[in-house]
Amino acid sequence: MIKAGIIGASGYAGSEALRFLLNHPDVEVVGVSAHSDANKTVSELYPSFYQICDVPFVEDEDEVIQKSDVIFAGLPAGISEAFAQKALDLNKKFIDLGADFRLDNPDDYAFWYGKKYENSALHQKQVYGLSETHREEIKHACLIGNPGCYPTSVQLGLYPIMLQHLYANKHIIVNSASGVTGAGKKLTEDTHFTKTNESFHPYKAGNHRHTPEIEQELSKMSGEAMRITFVPHLLPVNRGIVSTMYIDLKEDVKLEDIYKLYQNIYQDEQFVRILPLGKQADLKFVTYTNYCDISLHMDERNHTLIVVSTIDNMVKGTAGQAIQNMNLMFGLKENTGLNYVGPSF
Amino acid sequence: MIKAGIIGASGYAGSEALRFLLNHPDVEVVGVSAHSDANKTVSELYPSFYQICDVPFVEDEDEVIQKSDVIFAGLPAGISEAFAQKALDLNKKFIDLGADFRLDNPDDYAFWYGKKYENSALHQKQVYGLSETHREEIKHACLIGNPGCYPTSVQLGLYPIMLQHLYANKHIIVNSASGVTGAGKKLTEDTHFTKTNESFHPYKAGNHRHTPEIEQELSKMSGEAMRITFVPHLLPVNRGIVSTMYIDLKEDVKLEDIYKLYQNIYQDEQFVRILPLGKQADLKFVTYTNYCDISLHMDERNHTLIVVSTIDNMVKGTAGQAIQNMNLMFGLKENTGLNYVGPSF
Amino acid sequence: MIKAGIIGASGYAGSEALRFLLNHPDVEVVGVSAHSDANKTVSELYPSFYQICDVPFVEDEDEVIQKSDVIFAGLPAGISEAFAQKALDLNKKFIDLGADFRLDNPDDYAFWYGKKYENSALHQKQVYGLSETHREEIKHACLIGNPGCYPTSVQLGLYPIMLQHLYANKHIIVNSASGVTGAGKKLTEDTHFTKTNESFHPYKAGNHRHTPEIEQELSKMSGEAMRITFVPHLLPVNRGIVSTMYIDLKEDVKLEDIYKLYQNIYQDEQFVRILPLGKQADLKFVTYTNYCDISLHMDERNHTLIVVSTIDNMVKGTAGQAIQNMNLMFGLKENTGLNYVGPSF
Amino acid sequence: MIKAGIIGASGYAGSEALRFLLNHPDVEVVGVSAHSDANKTVSELYPSFYQICDVPFVEDEDEVIQKSDVIFAGLPAGISEAFAQKALDLNKKFIDLGADFRLDNPDDYAFWYGKKYENSALHQKQVYGLSETHREEIKHACLIGNPGCYPTSVQLGLYPIMLQHLYANKHIIVNSASGVTGAGKKLTEDTHFTKTNESFHPYKAGNHRHTPEIEQELSKMSGEAMRITFVPHLLPVNRGIVSTMYIDLKEDVKLEDIYKLYQNIYQDEQFVRILPLGKQADLKFVTYTNYCDISLHMDERNHTLIVVSTIDNMVKGTAGQAIQNMNLMFGLKENTGLNYVGPSF
Repeated sequence: MIKAGIIGASGYAGSEALRFLLNHPDVEVVGVSAHSDANKTVSELYPSFYQICDVPFVEDEDEVIQKSDVIFAGLPAGISEAFAQKALDLNKKFIDLGADFRLDNPDDYAFWYGKKYENSALHQKQVYGLSETHREEIKHACLIGNPGCYPTSVQLGLYPIMLQHLYANKHIIVNSASGVTGAGKKLTEDTHFTKTNESFHPYKAGNHRHTPEIEQELSKMSGEAMRITFVPHLLPVNRGIVSTMYIDLKEDVKLEDIYKLYQNIYQDEQFVRILPLGKQADLKFVTYTNYCDISLHMDERNHTLIVVSTIDNMVKGTAGQAIQNMNLMFGLKENTGLNYVGPSF
Repeated sequence: MIKAGIIGASGYAGSEALRFLLNHPDVEVVGVSAHSDANKTVSELYPSFYQICDVPFVEDEDEVIQKSDVIFAGLPAGISEAFAQKALDLNKKFIDLGADFRLDNPDDYAFWYGKKYENSALHQKQVYGLSETHREEIKHACLIGNPGCYPTSVQLGLYPIMLQHLYANKHIIVNSASGVTGAGKKLTEDTHFTKTNESFHPYKAGNHRHTPEIEQELSKMSGEAMRITFVPHLLPVNRGIVSTMYIDLKEDVKLEDIYKLYQNIYQDEQFVRILPLGKQADLKFVTYTNYCDISLHMDERNHTLIVVSTIDNMVKGTAGQAIQNMNLMFGLKENTGLNYVGPSF
Repeated sequence: MIKAGIIGASGYAGSEALRFLLNHPDVEVVGVSAHSDANKTVSELYPSFYQICDVPFVEDEDEVIQKSDVIFAGLPAGISEAFAQKALDLNKKFIDLGADFRLDNPDDYAFWYGKKYENSALHQKQVYGLSETHREEIKHACLIGNPGCYPTSVQLGLYPIMLQHLYANKHIIVNSASGVTGAGKKLTEDTHFTKTNESFHPYKAGNHRHTPEIEQELSKMSGEAMRITFVPHLLPVNRGIVSTMYIDLKEDVKLEDIYKLYQNIYQDEQFVRILPLGKQADLKFVTYTNYCDISLHMDERNHTLIVVSTIDNMVKGTAGQAIQNMNLMFGLKENTGLNYVGPSF
Repeated sequence: MIKAGIIGASGYAGSEALRFLLNHPDVEVVGVSAHSDANKTVSELYPSFYQICDVPFVEDEDEVIQKSDVIFAGLPAGISEAFAQKALDLNKKFIDLGADFRLDNPDDYAFWYGKKYENSALHQKQVYGLSETHREEIKHACLIGNPGCYPTSVQLGLYPIMLQHLYANKHIIVNSASGVTGAGKKLTEDTHFTKTNESFHPYKAGNHRHTPEIEQELSKMSGEAMRITFVPHLLPVNRGIVSTMYIDLKEDVKLEDIYKLYQNIYQDEQFVRILPLGKQADLKFVTYTNYCDISLHMDERNHTLIVVSTIDNMVKGTAGQAIQNMNLMFGLKENTGLNYVGPSF
């Protein structure tokens, strides 16, 4: 049994990681920590865990790190570094659910997060945890920057296009929408029920922190400097992201060819499903699962490809992918604990 | 491996049973049938199954029955009898998700469903499948009438009160509300999104078919003829039932004693959780799981006990309980395939 | 033009009153005050008012009172008394949207609200503002305790039964559900979108502050000490209350007679609609309007009458009824500013 | 009083037009017709009208046309022509809520709707009813093609950019999302509550019928052949459209200048609100009103302008704009019957 601990466990990312770890056959959860909620029990905060996991959150992260083989961190930006270093010093593996180990370029981190990488040597060891595109590195990694939710949906949706350079323009429009769990557990005016219900609006239009992460990875895939204009929106649902992406296609590329390309590239990937042409991806059919569903559409009149990619922001976008990465790191079957057949309604 | 088949598999009850069977470690699904949707694949109808279960629904129920050790039936009222008889003749086990094997008294069935029991001998063999209250019978049963969703929530909520005769009045008010999956897959004016969303209303007030089933079982528990006034309401959520029940209590009975009673009676039941006094049951924390959460409240001024019982209508109220019963019938651990830790959001 | 002011205008009750006053042809809004939101503009807080009402909330209530003919107060419990006295000293009319002038008995206020009536003489002048049952008093009142939202739905639903003493039992079960605006603007765990969405649960079961208000008024209607057991629930919708009430009927009373009785008693009331027998009241069809829809149902088996009464908690339950009362106090047509035909979807 | 009639009155567009006409001070509704719902009353179909408008739908359109000064048509594509001709022959005014009089080019109509213009002379008289951009023509028109809901949001959002040729690229990405009323009253799998709730997906990606209408009007505004890639999505809300549009800007154009331009161009338009820079348009604050809210955002890194435009699809997108056009045609104040201050929650 792998001994797993979670620090910063009382937020949405942490508690969802806990849920997946409890559902995992080869894992024992040995500790959970949280500052603001220390000494409350897990089930006091999240009653779905009642009589399943009633242990209290402890205040001391070190205690959790000591006991664990692998540590999941659900901490605010800028806090993970020190804990990751401690974990690595003790030969533990560390999977950061936040943004502190995703960006290669310290300047990007400084610009978008307003913080600095203090421990540069540590960041040399970080591996970007998009399981499908960084699998081999992940297997040998001890420190994972688990991808952001939007970036996961966007990258899986664009990967084949990037690999094959099918774009006529290196600037891609990415229009996304996320369920409210993406905004986290914090109470805000904008996530008050009466405000969000029967509402829809963009936020941080053209200016969201996931932009550099997406551009970094798309650029690695294509070998060229890719640019995106990214506008996320807040959806009145609990879970799920839909990213609708607009790509000016190279001449003579046909939808059918693209469809075959996606099928080929993802043929061995359990968690990426290319929907039949004519179908549209819908977050409803991936929620509560680790799947990413992708549908492909063509505006023939303008030779513009439309890729729609949908995931559950809390699963493939956060906790599920973290488990997938843990499985890779520990040599387990990649889908262990992730095979739950999700609901249709 | 148990070979399981589903007839009437394309409705909500059948497809949810399928989902739980696919998630079950000791079951192989060998066939699914459906009339109106014959030859469509499961995933065409329910895209969450895409690349997980893409087999077609067959038209012929007999074919499914032949291949199966256990048959689940999600058929309209009045159709299951013949198939159940066939299954029993072939030494298969039969679990009916509908209402055809729940009522002991043929007159009740005739009055509330407008149909007759044709095969009286068969009904002698039926066992009412509320796992917690009929466990021993279920273990030896070959024919289960799986309980209705509302009745499951009501009976688990009132069982200790009935056993101990704590009521001062044999007439109990049951006010329930159900998510829209309870209304099934059929398109109706009342389940059109724009009608149901931002709506709430009662239906079949004082006149719902689940009334005789509830009265039958409460009366068996207490040994007295119990009566209910039952009013269900339609909730703008997908899943979940909350039943709020009002019991005139015998003099001198205190809330603390009732709380202890519930804890005692349910102490060995994994799927019934008695919430701490002061907490309220909320469908949010049972959805997608087989749990029934119960909270207890007292209107001290009127010495009226308020019991709130909540389940997922599609799980403990339908498919999950059917699996629980199958596990009992086949000598498996009762919770096999039902241990999924459900979501908090 | 009537000069109207609102103190405590930045909460939901106050801002909805503002909206109705802006929609009223005979009213000029001359001032709005708010403490926590002072100096913000109305439209900053509530963008639906943008370019319609962009004035700032002032901090000083007295300034608003001075300028107004009628003052609406949307203040927390225990604060209105002093302002009401000031208004009356200046010969203004005062309509309190809170609970400070609803209860006749100071002990009830002390018990349920944990506060005292400081100015007893003032409370002698208060008139309970359920327009349909206190119309003549309201016309001559200078100080109105505008009814609570739940009490409005319950009283209109039970009024004919109380008047005619048709109950066999003076104890009535009242099961209500309210949209989330009923919980106000304050951010709470329980009104965070991800918690409330796809959720349903009771709160303050048997113990809600609206209980004494309902009992007081039902008892006045019937001339007997009526008791209720009252359990409110939180609905995942923005607006609307449904109260489902269970009355043990006197022998020989028939549903058809009750239906006629309701039609007679309410025949001149524009805002109370008795639905045809066989229909069920649904909050969808009263939201955004001042209507109260009532449907009547019978559990013949137990001779229990089921009355379902639905209103928009923010309109007939708060601001609309306040306008109706203002119209009565100022000798306007009672429906002025309230004739908006509401949406069907 | 203007005598108004509605043919095809039982659908969502027709019934919402009826609601606005009932709320209009200078209109008398003299007749409503509907085929499938003939002889049902308005309030039977839409209970919000109970005791307000209980008249039956008649079957005969001619009867309605005869009695009316102005006829609103809520008919399926291809049926309005004959009725419009009849109305014009009788010197009535005709406002078509459908798509039959929007497209100038018969080939566009043939390509996108699969039908032909039978009466070419009639189409010479049609005026496109976007009130803000065709005001003078509308004043003198007798036949209005009321704009589509998506096109209204898109055109108002892009009008200043088109007028001033600020685009660097004549191809514009339009990503829209609509509430479910946009799909109409017809029961479909995709608008069943359990499917739509907690769901989000695109439909007719790159291939929606509103495309040619948008391109036609943008091209007229700019004097150049504009092209759009248009992808609508279905939102789990009842009402409202948000269109997010991506424009490659000409060099040296700054966000502040664009903001001033929008303010100038729309300074006399009551129903178009340009939100302050830094705010985002949200359908919540326009629903139930005739407003179009527009917010402007810049992706400075890519010099891409992001325009967000939101309306209520049933009001400014359908019935409200039709009333606005009627007011213009009859010489009334343009905002008559449209001044309702909408809800904030």
